[in-house]
This record gives sequence, C-alpha cells and structure tokens, in this order.
Amino acid sequence: MKPIQVGLLGIGTVGSGTFEVLRRNQEEIRRRAGRGIEIAMVADLDTERARRVVGDGVKVVGDAREVIANPEIDIVIELIGGYGIAKALVLEAIAAGKHVVTANKALLAVHGTEIFAAAHQRGVMVAFEAAVAGGIPIIKALREGLTANRIEWIAGIINGTTNFILSEMRDKGLDFGTVLKEAQRLGYAEADPTFDIEGVDAAHKLTLMSAIAFGVPVQFDKAYVEGITQLAAQDIKYAEQLGYRIKLLGVTRRTDKGIELRVHPTLVPAKRLLANVEGAMNAVVVHGDAVGTTLYYGKGAGSEPTASAVIADLVDITRLHSADVQHRVPYLAFHPQSMSDLPVLPMSEVTSSYYLRLRVADQAGVLAKVTGLLATAGISIDAVLQREAEDVGGEGSTDTDLIILTHDAREGAVDSVIAELQALPTVLAPVVRLRKEELR
Amino acid sequence: MKPIQVGLLGIGTVGSGTFEVLRRNQEEIRRRAGRGIEIAMVADLDTERARRVVGDGVKVVGDAREVIANPEIDIVIELIGGYGIAKALVLEAIAAGKHVVTANKALLAVHGTEIFAAAHQRGVMVAFEAAVAGGIPIIKALREGLTANRIEWIAGIINGTTNFILSEMRDKGLDFGTVLKEAQRLGYAEADPTFDIEGVDAAHKLTLMSAIAFGVPVQFDKAYVEGITQLAAQDIKYAEQLGYRIKLLGVTRRTDKGIELRVHPTLVPAKRLLANVEGAMNAVVVHGDAVGTTLYYGKGAGSEPTASAVIADLVDITRLHSADVQHRVPYLAFHPQSMSDLPVLPMSEVTSSYYLRLRVADQAGVLAKVTGLLATAGISIDAVLQREAEDVGGEGSTDTDLIILTHDAREGAVDSVIAELQALPTVLAPVVRLRKEELR
Repeated sequence: MKPIQVGLLGIGTVGSGTFEVLRRNQEEIRRRAGRGIEIAMVADLDTERARRVVGDGVKVVGDAREVIANPEIDIVIELIGGYGIAKALVLEAIAAGKHVVTANKALLAVHGTEIFAAAHQRGVMVAFEAAVAGGIPIIKALREGLTANRIEWIAGIINGTTNFILSEMRDKGLDFGTVLKEAQRLGYAEADPTFDIEGVDAAHKLTLMSAIAFGVPVQFDKAYVEGITQLAAQDIKYAEQLGYRIKLLGVTRRTDKGIELRVHPTLVPAKRLLANVEGAMNAVVVHGDAVGTTLYYGKGAGSEPTASAVIADLVDITRLHSADVQHRVPYLAFHPQSMSDLPVLPMSEVTSSYYLRLRVADQAGVLAKVTGLLATAGISIDAVLQREAEDVGGEGSTDTDLIILTHDAREGAVDSVIAELQALPTVLAPVVRLRKEELR
Repeated sequence: MKPIQVGLLGIGTVGSGTFEVLRRNQEEIRRRAGRGIEIAMVADLDTERARRVVGDGVKVVGDAREVIANPEIDIVIELIGGYGIAKALVLEAIAAGKHVVTANKALLAVHGTEIFAAAHQRGVMVAFEAAVAGGIPIIKALREGLTANRIEWIAGIINGTTNFILSEMRDKGLDFGTVLKEAQRLGYAEADPTFDIEGVDAAHKLTLMSAIAFGVPVQFDKAYVEGITQLAAQDIKYAEQLGYRIKLLGVTRRTDKGIELRVHPTLVPAKRLLANVEGAMNAVVVHGDAVGTTLYYGKGAGSEPTASAVIADLVDITRLHSADVQHRVPYLAFHPQSMSDLPVLPMSEVTSSYYLRLRVADQAGVLAKVTGLLATAGISIDAVLQREAEDVGGEGSTDTDLIILTHDAREGAVDSVIAELQALPTVLAPVVRLRKEELR
C-alpha cells in the first residue's frame, strides 16, 4: 500500500524533529501502523531552511495553502503556533477533508470548540497529543486509558521552563530574576518568557485536559492564571521547612458546584512523587474514582519528545484510516506479519552492573586480591564499601563485609570471576550478587 | 442504540469491581463510548455469590459455555485466570466471533501467540490492559502512545506484593520471612504467595510488555526469573548506604545481539522516581529514542483499579464496533452531543488549603490575634512556624515571619480574613498567600 501522505506546515524545532524521527524509525513505524507514513510536502516561510532539513526528496513550498489544496495529502500537521494564521489554516484543512495533527495548545484552548465542531461535521480527525506535556501520552490516557472513571481531579507540572526555574531557586537559594536569566542563557526559557512564567502556557494545556476529563467545552477564558514571577525565595525555604515543595501546578477538579480550573504556585508535600519532578520535566497526576491516583512523567517539550507525540497521532490516524476495524490496533502493537525474530538473550549475555557482597577475613591484602581478580577479568569498579557486619561474629571477630559496585559488565564474565573469588581462602561465605540498573 | 452486550466469565474480586464500576459510572461511560455498555450475562461456578453481586437484572449461569453460545453477547470478559479452562474458553469465544477482554497475564504470556493468531484470523479483538500493572494504561501507552519510538528499554515495578514486602523490609529493617507473614495478614500477599515472591507474576507481565515494545512474540519460557526470597536485610541496608534502593524489577532491553528479558531484585539509584515507588504501588519506566524516559505510576492490583483497565478495553472495543471510523474516539473524549454544562467556578468558590506568610511585630498577643481572626472565619490551622527572617531588619530588629498552614477552606473566606489581617497594626507588610494541595 502507498504510504499515507502527510503535509507539514511549519518546520521549526518540532517539525524538524518530526521529520527526523519519521525518517530514522520509518521501518519500525511502518510495522506498527501497518502502512508507511511519509511527509510528502512541507510549507514554511523560510523555504531554504526547510530545504536544508528535508533534503531533495520532499516538495517544499512557501505557501501553506498549496499543501492544503494538494489532493494527494491525507493528513496535515500544523506546527505554526498561535491563534492567527494557524486557525485559518486548520479550518481550511478540515474543510478540504484532511485529518489534522497539531501541537497548538493555544489555538485549541481558545478556539477548540469551533475547530472540533467543524471537524466533526466534515468527518475528519483532529489529534493533539503533542499539545499537552510533550511526549507523555497524557491525552491518550485521559481520552482512552481512563474511560471507566469518574475523574475527580488532575494536577500537573505542565510547563518545563517554570519547573526548571523553581528547581533552581530551591537548589541554589536564588531569587526568581537571577534564575530566569540563567534559564534564558541555557535555552530553557525564551527571550520573551511571558507565556511560560505567567502561567498562560500551563493554563492552555490544563484547559484541554479539563475538557477531556470532565466532558466540558474548552474555556480558557474562565481559567485562573497566576505565574511564578512574584514568588519569593524565602517562601520556598519556609515551605521546605514545613515539608513542602513549591511547584507551578495546573489543577482542575470536579466539585458539586462546578469545575475548578486554575494555575498557580502550589505547596506540594515533599514526599509525593510530583514534588520530586525536577528540572524541565513534566508530570501529570490524575485521580479517578476507580483507578485511584495515577501519574505520568516525561519530557514536556523539545524537538524529539514533542515529535514523538505528533507521530503517535499520525500512527493512530493511519491505523484508523487504513485497516479494517478489527485489525486497527495490532494485539501486540506490531502487525502480525511484521514481528521481529530478535532472540531473547541468555543471562550470561546480559549486560548489567553489579553489587557484590563478600564476607572476608579482615587481613592485609584481601582487597588487593579481590580487586585484582576483577581487573584481570576486565570488570571495573564503581564503588567499594567495607563494613563491620552487625549481628555476626562475637567479640574480637576479624571478619568484615566487603561490598563492591561494578560498572557495566557481561553477566557471564561476572559469574566467572565470582567463582574465582569464591575459591579464595579469605572469602568466608557464599558471595552475594545483585544486579544494579542506573536507569538513565 | 442498544447497549453493547457483555458476558462475564468469573465474578471474583476484579469481576465484582468491573460490575460495580460499570454500574456506578454508566452514564459517564456511555457519554464517552457513544453507546451503553451492559453486562448481560455472568458465568461463575458459585452462582449464588454471582447472584449476590449482580442482583436480579442479569442472567447468571454456572457454565461459561452458555455465555459464549449466546448470540446476543458481543464481548466476553475472561476473569477466571490460569492456563487451563481459561485458555479453552478464550479460544472458544474467539471462534464464536466474540471480542475478548482478559486480565489473564499468565495465559497470554504463555499462549499469547496461539490466541492472537486465532483472533486475527477470526477478525476479533483481544484486549488485555488489565493484565499488566492494573489500572495504569501502560499497554495503551506502549501500543499506541509511543509508536514513534524505537523503544530501548523498559524497567518496571509490576508486582505490588513484592514491592510492599521490600518497602517494609527497608522501612523496618525486618527480614523477608517476617514481612511476608505481615503482608499475608494484611491481605497484600496470598496464602500461597509463590507466583508473586518468586517473580513469576512479574515475568508474565514483563513478557507482554517486551513483545509490544520490540515486536517480538511472547516467550515467557525464555524469561529469566528470580524472586526476592533470598534477599537479605543487610543487603538492603548496604545498598542504602551506597545511595540505592532494592526493588524487584522486570527489565527488558534491546541490544544488538538480542533482547534481555529478566526479573530480579535490582539496586536502583535512590534519587530516581522509580526508587521512590513504595508499598503496593506499581510503576513502569519506558525509554524511547525520541521521547526519552517516561514513567507511568498507579495501583497495580485490586478490584476497582483492575476494573478500570477492563472497562477501558470495553470502551475501546465499543468505540470501534459502533461508530464510523472518523468518529470512533471523540476529540475531547466525550461525544459532542454528550458534553456537560458544569460551570467553571470563580476562584472565590474554589476550595484549597493555604500557606500564609505574615511579617509581624514580635510582641505578645500577635499570634493570638491572628489565629483568633482565622478561627472566627471558620478557617482551621494545620501548622504554624515562627521565624526570624533573614536578610531583613538590622541588629535588634523585633520583626518576625509568621507562617501559617491552613486546612481546606473556601478561597473567598480566606481572602476576607487576609483583608482583616492586613488591617492589623502589628502586620507590617503585605500578607503572602500561596495555595497548598495535599494531592492524596
């Protein structure tokens, strides 16, 4: 089957990432979608930059309307942003019968009702996973994963710039203005950071989540929006002393009287996972009456994380568009005729790092002997801890516990060296071996 | 449209939860699915218990094959468990052209290839969100939310019993046997806990996630499985001293040579969110090449959390089964004709708890005056902190910072009392008010 044809409007950071990820993972994506997905046409005012990104195989135009008018195009991705031309183009694409994928939270939070009504009438899909929390599939979780639930509330860190600033203010005890300048220097904050630091960006995203959670129209104009510009360093410190962290949260809650929809700096108990989301990361907590509390965490912005969400929407639409109903989503994500035959490795071929505990005689040269054997086996050491073991040995016992953390090694090699260690007369008990994963 | 007709095989803990949540949230679920979902028939060996759960409106039978043979039934939910009769019934349901929803990880991890092939050939769906990590929509995230990515690795805490035991061992310094008995007494571990504590249950779930992530067949027989029964309390303590926590992780990773598929106790850096998942909670970390690291957290077991996943699958199937392709999943989760008109509340009607910082003269009676005004307004106090402010006032300054945390109150009431506080002559600067959310 011919790949589904995609037209891309605006090829900046996210657009470039979308093009790159689609190209890099095209084979894997085709195996999942059941059909290739191809960006066939790109519109950008800067056609030279666009040409540099996409190379020669893709048609590049300066006028987005050429993409919309092209009858070959099945899906239009809108990555222009803002309420102006983007709105007109999305409505025109819908009118032309194109499915639309957009990352434009501002547009949907303000004009979503009009846009969804137009799409419903025309029978096309409008997908916007990338509009909220970057690569975290939170829209899908709310719209499809938690459909059993009466959602009670959502609380999210949904703006990476402000979370980075708050993390830095807390870590370094600095005030807002100083950290903002640093964030701008590092590229975490834009030259004009108003939308981020005043909470507007978070409120756009919260508005979309609230609509999906509670089945109400998008109504950004009714959101309460308070940013972090007035936050004093001393309040972060006092909050800490009381067991809290201050985060810019978007909170939306169902009450008997109506829906709360609000963005503001918020004290969160330090022991909650959400309070420990640091730097530019995002996380959303959703509380449903059946499922209880669930949390979704990941990168909320950036080229490829956002592209991940854009492409997930493309795959969703391609699956719907191209397969018969029962076979839309493959049971195991990949279509049955596209399964891989990658083997499962035996444990001896697995790579991990290791924790080793040796009960050794407390005498000169033991550590040198042990580390020498590891070195000979090519296993490098990350950390060593030597401790008097408790509850073992009486007065005057000369045994100690020697704990070694290794760097990554092949398990077969580690097991061989453990056999050698075990044979040493100074190793007095079976060696304990646990695996360690840094999960970076 | 007539509600979609569901037959339920096995009405134990999860089955009862499924029935109860479907009943309680039927209106909301209908608005999302575009059609009612009705459990019309239940099979259980214990027909009396089944009758007590479902009441008189539902047909109860002792023979599951009566459900499968009923031409009115569109979807069969299998909640019997195990490899035996459950396998035969699932295959028979598929042969009869029913869509199948199951929470049976053991069955799919071992016989999934055969079952999915049968379903593919018959053109029916087999959905199993409830088989992995209870109510967390991790199957959906992997199968649909992260389709852009080359998944590099998954690491998950996917067995609540063992995570509870490990949390208790660490918190209380107790050994495995003692904590297991406590877990059994509290209902966190079964009378025969073998499948949990030996890692088998986690390996079933990991096998399913691995297949979905990498597009390989399910192959539980090749998984490495090591439980927590041999874990010594002293290794938990040493790990802690080195900056790690020990968790029973399921890890599956793509390497050049093949796929790692392994369950074992694992040291995880204490600062990772995953290391801070405590008690019976589950969490799964997924690393994709585009999205980076994402994490999914929630209750991994229990009646209603698991029912949440079962019903999400029912809604997915109902949406596919009942709507034209373009309108399958509503843009905003609820069908446009089913939107709610719940109002968005003004901030004065919002309920929150509050952090108040007052700059006060350090003289007798100030605290009494302040707390008196709060009490009169019906706002109760959670905590008070009085501190010499730094960087303010010179030698001999008699001003202090008074910080008050309140319990939940209406924001309008809080703002009124702040106005009164502000008017006190002993309050020397604008009162700082921040909101606080416990996120329980």
